[in-house]
Amino acid sequence: MDSKKFLLQEKDIPTAWYNIVADMKTKPRPIINPGTKQPLKPEDLFPLFSEEASRQELNTTDAWIEIPDEVREMYRIWRPTPLVRAAGLEKLLDTPAHIYFKNESVSPVGSHKLNSAIPQAYFCKKQGVTNITTETGAGQWGAALSLAAKHFGIELAVYMVKISYEQKPYRRSIMQTYGAEVIASPSMSTKAGRKIITDHPNYQGSLGTAISEAVELAMSTPNCKYCLGSVLNHVALHQTVLGLEAEKQMEMADEYPDVVIGCFGGGSNFSGISFPFMRHNFAGEHKTRFVAAEPASCPKLTRGVFQYDFGDEAGYTPLIPMYTLGHNFAPANIHAGGLRYHGAGSIISQLKHDNLMEAVDIPQLESFAAGVDFARCEGIIPAPESAHAIAAAIREAKRAKEEGKKETILFNLSGHGLIDMASYDRYLAGDLTNYDVPDAEIKANTDMLEKII
Amino acid sequence: MDSKKFLLQEKDIPTAWYNIVADMKTKPRPIINPGTKQPLKPEDLFPLFSEEASRQELNTTDAWIEIPDEVREMYRIWRPTPLVRAAGLEKLLDTPAHIYFKNESVSPVGSHKLNSAIPQAYFCKKQGVTNITTETGAGQWGAALSLAAKHFGIELAVYMVKISYEQKPYRRSIMQTYGAEVIASPSMSTKAGRKIITDHPNYQGSLGTAISEAVELAMSTPNCKYCLGSVLNHVALHQTVLGLEAEKQMEMADEYPDVVIGCFGGGSNFSGISFPFMRHNFAGEHKTRFVAAEPASCPKLTRGVFQYDFGDEAGYTPLIPMYTLGHNFAPANIHAGGLRYHGAGSIISQLKHDNLMEAVDIPQLESFAAGVDFARCEGIIPAPESAHAIAAAIREAKRAKEEGKKETILFNLSGHGLIDMASYDRYLAGDLTNYDVPDAEIKANTDMLEKII
Repeated sequence: MDSKKFLLQEKDIPTAWYNIVADMKTKPRPIINPGTKQPLKPEDLFPLFSEEASRQELNTTDAWIEIPDEVREMYRIWRPTPLVRAAGLEKLLDTPAHIYFKNESVSPVGSHKLNSAIPQAYFCKKQGVTNITTETGAGQWGAALSLAAKHFGIELAVYMVKISYEQKPYRRSIMQTYGAEVIASPSMSTKAGRKIITDHPNYQGSLGTAISEAVELAMSTPNCKYCLGSVLNHVALHQTVLGLEAEKQMEMADEYPDVVIGCFGGGSNFSGISFPFMRHNFAGEHKTRFVAAEPASCPKLTRGVFQYDFGDEAGYTPLIPMYTLGHNFAPANIHAGGLRYHGAGSIISQLKHDNLMEAVDIPQLESFAAGVDFARCEGIIPAPESAHAIAAAIREAKRAKEEGKKETILFNLSGHGLIDMASYDRYLAGDLTNYDVPDAEIKANTDMLEKII
Repeated sequence: MDSKKFLLQEKDIPTAWYNIVADMKTKPRPIINPGTKQPLKPEDLFPLFSEEASRQELNTTDAWIEIPDEVREMYRIWRPTPLVRAAGLEKLLDTPAHIYFKNESVSPVGSHKLNSAIPQAYFCKKQGVTNITTETGAGQWGAALSLAAKHFGIELAVYMVKISYEQKPYRRSIMQTYGAEVIASPSMSTKAGRKIITDHPNYQGSLGTAISEAVELAMSTPNCKYCLGSVLNHVALHQTVLGLEAEKQMEMADEYPDVVIGCFGGGSNFSGISFPFMRHNFAGEHKTRFVAAEPASCPKLTRGVFQYDFGDEAGYTPLIPMYTLGHNFAPANIHAGGLRYHGAGSIISQLKHDNLMEAVDIPQLESFAAGVDFARCEGIIPAPESAHAIAAAIREAKRAKEEGKKETILFNLSGHGLIDMASYDRYLAGDLTNYDVPDAEIKANTDMLEKII
């Protein structure tokens, strides 16, 4: 555990986010209106999101977007975060590879989600919005937005997937301690919720349903906007703050990554760690590999189709060009709740389609084994989501050993697992299993999609 | 939340701990053998503790004790920790006071306890010890020692107070994830445990009983030592690493504290934040006030007697000169489990007796109200224990406002409360109460003590 930290000062917190779309040779296909099939303009998004977030969502020209002072000020609560050379893990694996991780677990809510929660809440506040809504799966995003909303004096209602609401009461309590209202989804408070409760009385909820409920409440409440914690372009944009810091810190370590890894749910933390390094590939300066680590039970990047699909179950959102398993796909109840989402964002989907990045799928048991090894070597118990990135990093380090290569591996530790100990408990007791997704299930769900691409 | 962090570099981690005993005009009374009534020598402690810890425990002459490289190396996982100007809290209180906190919650186990777990495990390892035992109440100390033991390759058995074992399963899981064995106390594995289970079949355990069990197992197991997370002099010594950092950081802020505050259970975090500043009082350079914040339900410093007493319930430990409520005192089941201990360490007790420090008692509801305010202002949900320090800091800031004084207040945020959310849940639901301790109960428990002082 002779691991070395690389620390920046507060003045080193980036002053601008990196908008990768501006530098992409092939731009992502446009987000479209499901009725007209026409590409959306920012104004079309204004009813749903803050105006600033809407403009960022569709900005394809500015590579750098300034971070407002009010946002940087709040970033300073915990940023910059450490970059760590994982010497303990290297020793365990007896690998010639150098393994680094960006430690986003040090935020007060325990994950990277606060990086986007703060600007989203700030942009709402700036235009006088009084209420916001959102959904949350495992609760990481909901906790982050609760803190940001409280800071900017905005009321927040969070639809929390019912099974998490019951299985992860601590995350619910965190949101309530920060002053947010938390509603188990599906609920009777929306049409979408009432319909699914009536049709399926014992339904335990899904991220797709919770998004539908949050969107519906925002659209039917005066002066209320909706915020989303992943998938969208402006969320990926905000998360680049972590990768830009990591870039400076790799310089301090006098290294440059051969492989960059993030776990993958909707894409927020993977985008954050990858995009700043990817621009050097675009410029021909490096040939870094980028690896998204998704759960084998929710394999949209490795086994999904590249197609237009809705972001939610009820079909309230615009159509997004994505690698998807279909918006009706019901992921198995794995313990990495933050990765249980049917689709990938439009930028990631285009990058994957153009072979500018890779994806691997990690079985649940492999992810927990990696998480326990990491905890014992590096001291930090990782979130079950982040454990997927660790598992992928371990695969790369073992490959480097076999090939006798001194490679440099960088992964993002998106959060700690202190609120997910019930999952570790079950893993240590031998109660967890892997989940396989039959081809037929993917085909059935994706065949239902309207073919636009 | 425009709070400002003061950050040190790894090279600034102190190279020596501060042993306050060397500078005390009136030394603490000696720890004595209950049979012979003679002061203990280090050799008398060797069967129980590592030799190095035993020597440190009784060292009254060396003001500075070097921190071994192996310990500093592991401190670097999370140290140095930030010092934060709590501007959000100042604003809420509209106080002229400047409030600072040392943020020990950023350790991978979430509290300051790792500061002593590492050297205690290291000293055992250095002399070839293969097994250690300990007790834990809320689980903070047990989690810290589990990580340290794993790092140095030592087997650890933790006796966890039964009610916490059942109410705080996450902390149990953390210890198991790090590879420790966790036993609910009272247990059938020791004589002390069997006796109390037989006499009181539904007994939910106490820290005093868990210490008895851990000590008994250590004494009856070959090559096994016992480690304690608070109360003892060598634990206070190790914790000074946090106060020494805070001293440098207050210099960076160009301020010096008028008041230094820590919550108080056995004394470990209070000693850590206080002793380095206290030496400047001893030298006549400052007149800082030092305030220990204890729970009203366990008021040893404010209402206990100054007397020799056992550190555990069964009477296995040596006799320690302490402010105590009697080793049979059964504290109410408050949610700050780490503060439910009947006595204070010998150094603190002497300092209190000599009026070199103060103590206040905080009712449970006031502590949680302070915790929620702090979470909303500063973003970090504090451990219920640490919330007592926050409550005391708020009292001081309000007093400063009434008196119109621009005072500088420093408190130690000993840990975060992410694993204690069930307690916040109950507080927010209005289910918690205060607990008063009748004078008669204190008198009955302390009258039983043999009068040696």
